[in-house]
Amino acid sequence: MMRIDILTLFPRMFEGPMGESIIGKAVEKNLLEINVSNFREFSDNKHQAVDDYPYGGGAGMLLKVQPIYDNLKAIDQETSAAQKRVILLDPAGKPFDQKMAEEFSSEEHLVFICGHYEGYDERIRSLVTDEVSLGDYVLTGGELGAMVMIDATVRLLPDVLGNNTSAQTDSHSTGLLEHPQYTRPAEFNGMKVPEVLTNGNHKLIAQWQLKESLRRTYLRRPDMLEKLKMTDEMKKLLEEVKKEEE
Amino acid sequence: MMRIDILTLFPRMFEGPMGESIIGKAVEKNLLEINVSNFREFSDNKHQAVDDYPYGGGAGMLLKVQPIYDNLKAIDQETSAAQKRVILLDPAGKPFDQKMAEEFSSEEHLVFICGHYEGYDERIRSLVTDEVSLGDYVLTGGELGAMVMIDATVRLLPDVLGNNTSAQTDSHSTGLLEHPQYTRPAEFNGMKVPEVLTNGNHKLIAQWQLKESLRRTYLRRPDMLEKLKMTDEMKKLLEEVKKEEE
Repeated sequence: MMRIDILTLFPRMFEGPMGESIIGKAVEKNLLEINVSNFREFSDNKHQAVDDYPYGGGAGMLLKVQPIYDNLKAIDQETSAAQKRVILLDPAGKPFDQKMAEEFSSEEHLVFICGHYEGYDERIRSLVTDEVSLGDYVLTGGELGAMVMIDATVRLLPDVLGNNTSAQTDSHSTGLLEHPQYTRPAEFNGMKVPEVLTNGNHKLIAQWQLKESLRRTYLRRPDMLEKLKMTDEMKKLLEEVKKEEE
Repeated sequence: MMRIDILTLFPRMFEGPMGESIIGKAVEKNLLEINVSNFREFSDNKHQAVDDYPYGGGAGMLLKVQPIYDNLKAIDQETSAAQKRVILLDPAGKPFDQKMAEEFSSEEHLVFICGHYEGYDERIRSLVTDEVSLGDYVLTGGELGAMVMIDATVRLLPDVLGNNTSAQTDSHSTGLLEHPQYTRPAEFNGMKVPEVLTNGNHKLIAQWQLKESLRRTYLRRPDMLEKLKMTDEMKKLLEEVKKEEE
């Protein structure tokens, strides 16, 4: 069973998302244990302060190292300290991607440290194994980032998704964007399903789907094509797409 | 006042995060109105089905166009239909970034459509103005993505953040990663605050901070430096960093 600890000043933020959706289901199935702790409770300050002014001046406050240090120590005492990834949510961290989600999903114990509004005292970085950023945008805290990383990780655990094939066939796992898909009705407000999908010729359907995946990736994310190992069929279809889109 | 609508099958996921944090505060201050609607309630199917099998076969189910179409129509009837961004959360969309957050923050009305597990019937794309992806990783649904985008957007609204300078000075707004920062105590477990930050020379402090911002960006995100317009001082400091890191 995977164990996840979350260190946050806003434990209530996790209530809705953790109960609903895949994460709650993984907990119900005993595939996952999640502990949310408020590191304010570990502050040795009489006012339970967790932040203070930065040395050298500047706007904003910084999270102090002591409460987080003591919260991590308490987790160490409950678990085997060695086998653990400690992840600091930080805009200056390594951008999160699917490869990292796969790596995380093979660990036994993940710890996420969520800052909020403020920066971190630099010494907090010495307590962690990973500094990770969700993307090139600014959020008010690490909480939503931790939820996203947990969702992306937990859905890769064996037996979490109902359909075992779903985890693999998604975009960003195949390296191509998904082709257009249609369900009933065959016509809605004048918009029709492409004929090839309704005629039952599975070979033609597969070829159409591959070609349209290539088209969408070519038009929207050409950077993804550069990283892709293509079969001869893919190369041929991509040439057709390029001509059609000229 | 900005209005945000969220179309989801899991409205409860939004309870914790929406109440706590910056988003709840913006609602309290009457700077923001958020409506979460369950598009299942708009299904014209007697079993309130929202999904169906894909034409042409394949694993997984697809969200039908009708419930989402009718939910959007109901929102149009409440509001001015013209002034609206309708955002589809989708792994095949344009990657979300800070520029997009800035764009969204200048809109009066945002609508987020969150899929879950399943793909979209292609015709749903004809109902939206934007298709956006949170990053190159796979999530079980669009809900967490919508929360992230709302957080990044709402914090840019005037009067939402307490400290007006905070929104601008963060990483990804200046184009450089944040320099190391320290708060009390001056020594923790043998780890000391750099002397320059404690001697009160503001010119030296500013130079140290700029240099360490450049160092961190150079070491971790050289791609960010390529996009940056640098002053002569920055160029000189970056040269020093490169020599020191050789």
